Amino acid sequence: MKERSTSVRAADPLSSWAEGPAKSAIVQFVQSVTEKGGKDYVPPEERIATFDNDGTLWVEYPLYTQFLFAFDRVKELVPKHPEWKTKQPFKALLEGDMKSVGASGLKGLLEIALTAHAGVTATEYAEEAGKWLRTTRHEKFKRPYVECIYQPQLELLAYLRAHEFKTFIVSGGGMAFMRPITEEVYGLPPWQVVGSSVVSEFQIKDGKADLVRSEKISFFDDKAAKPVGIYDHIGRRPILAFGNSDGDMQMIEYTTGAEGRRLGLFLHHTDGVREFAYDRKSYVGTLDKALGQAEAKGWIIVDMKNDWKRVFAFEGME
Amino acid sequence: MKERSTSVRAADPLSSWAEGPAKSAIVQFVQSVTEKGGKDYVPPEERIATFDNDGTLWVEYPLYTQFLFAFDRVKELVPKHPEWKTKQPFKALLEGDMKSVGASGLKGLLEIALTAHAGVTATEYAEEAGKWLRTTRHEKFKRPYVECIYQPQLELLAYLRAHEFKTFIVSGGGMAFMRPITEEVYGLPPWQVVGSSVVSEFQIKDGKADLVRSEKISFFDDKAAKPVGIYDHIGRRPILAFGNSDGDMQMIEYTTGAEGRRLGLFLHHTDGVREFAYDRKSYVGTLDKALGQAEAKGWIIVDMKNDWKRVFAFEGME
Repeated sequence: MKERSTSVRAADPLSSWAEGPAKSAIVQFVQSVTEKGGKDYVPPEERIATFDNDGTLWVEYPLYTQFLFAFDRVKELVPKHPEWKTKQPFKALLEGDMKSVGASGLKGLLEIALTAHAGVTATEYAEEAGKWLRTTRHEKFKRPYVECIYQPQLELLAYLRAHEFKTFIVSGGGMAFMRPITEEVYGLPPWQVVGSSVVSEFQIKDGKADLVRSEKISFFDDKAAKPVGIYDHIGRRPILAFGNSDGDMQMIEYTTGAEGRRLGLFLHHTDGVREFAYDRKSYVGTLDKALGQAEAKGWIIVDMKNDWKRVFAFEGME
Repeated sequence: MKERSTSVRAADPLSSWAEGPAKSAIVQFVQSVTEKGGKDYVPPEERIATFDNDGTLWVEYPLYTQFLFAFDRVKELVPKHPEWKTKQPFKALLEGDMKSVGASGLKGLLEIALTAHAGVTATEYAEEAGKWLRTTRHEKFKRPYVECIYQPQLELLAYLRAHEFKTFIVSGGGMAFMRPITEEVYGLPPWQVVGSSVVSEFQIKDGKADLVRSEKISFFDDKAAKPVGIYDHIGRRPILAFGNSDGDMQMIEYTTGAEGRRLGLFLHHTDGVREFAYDRKSYVGTLDKALGQAEAKGWIIVDMKNDWKRVFAFEGME
């Protein structure tokens, strides 16, 4: 273990990060909080780092992955739910009218996502989500979603852990959707994955005990709810937080709004060639207010195009 | 690390446990799920063990510790809240009429506990709870609450971790109340402590960001809610669960109600001399239904008087 981390360090643990202000800010921050006797030293048990998932660790464009999972489920289940053929926004979805689906807004999208898996057990849901993420391909990258993960962020997670940080996801996405693959893909066991959840009910059926998922949200982990999710699930304030949208702003404010050295970062999607370019006016991953306040607040804007030498592990492998 | 665990094993890692059926069941279970190539083998990442806290890891008698913490807070705050002097159940509490406080039931006790710390920040609450638990003494044992912890359970937690289990608390008590001391006392970081919570709100005041706690419960982690808490916070089904009351029954059913080798245990408070003797008719830690079903379900009843050679670390030190 020790030997490996030494050899990784020799080879630059952040090799997909270009030299520049973002990489420097990260490396300097980690050095300062881990330097024993230094004025910014933070003991290992308090080295908490939180990462948003959609658009920060994995691709979220042109639409949050979890909605695409729900769309496929609705199409699969329609023989059992003929009422969907005449009910919006299901009707539009089944007719392939994505413009109307989009026009139904977050409310419509959530209705589809929540309805699609209502009544499913926790065990079945985990199996389905894991299988879908391993086998369904992103329309632009033609790779399974489990590969549409940002390589520089995997390096950053490993770099932080090598410096005794505890790393967590704090996402607006469903915990149960992400968890079947987070250990394999990010090295994060399910209890280090915080996100949205639905009301579920304990049930024993034919001697088998399980949770049954309902169509009601119990926690929507976005914006001002992200610090709440951190408080309830992690119980310790992060010293580093990384997001990519205005939905992550309160998480970053919670992280940086306390004494001691802190680091807040936003990934700015500026690379329309290797990935996608979007920010202030985008429907997914809107980055507007945070972009405006970053300089005054000392938050680091990571420019995908210039700060990342490589976006995906599969780049150049085609 | 390796050397230490070997020397601990040589000295019996469960030295406060008397030889008998409970200890044998634990040791055999751990051997069977950790034996590589064995039919009951469970990989380390799935070795999840959950423990109730009140009455399972620490003393809960004659009243759940968290209520005593709230009582002290109410007495301290009454100059700022003269209305409590005439409002039940606060009036009874302030007059020392504990019989009437008890008669107000769980509803009355919760009202006191929730009101006592409403409007307090997460940071202040953690400081107060930690200080209170370190300095307030139990009326029978004359020791601070952080010492009124069952020594055999500390050994069991360490034994499980030495066998690559991940250990968690899943308590009806408030997460925020326990977390300030769980790392020091049980070796459990806050994200491995699941419990009840209140609605909290993110707030930035004078440039400082924090959560502010309300008087509204957001999650009451008892009975059928315990499997829900496990699903939402841990995200993986335990293979071992340890409780002491009917409030833990669904957690044990969730644990044992699936394929593979599983172990469910209940601590039976049978020792009126070293601790307290209570079960079916007790107001705190009622153990009735589970006691009746244990044999048929294969759950292990741990008899405090006979199965534990020592209850507290301080025993014999007076």
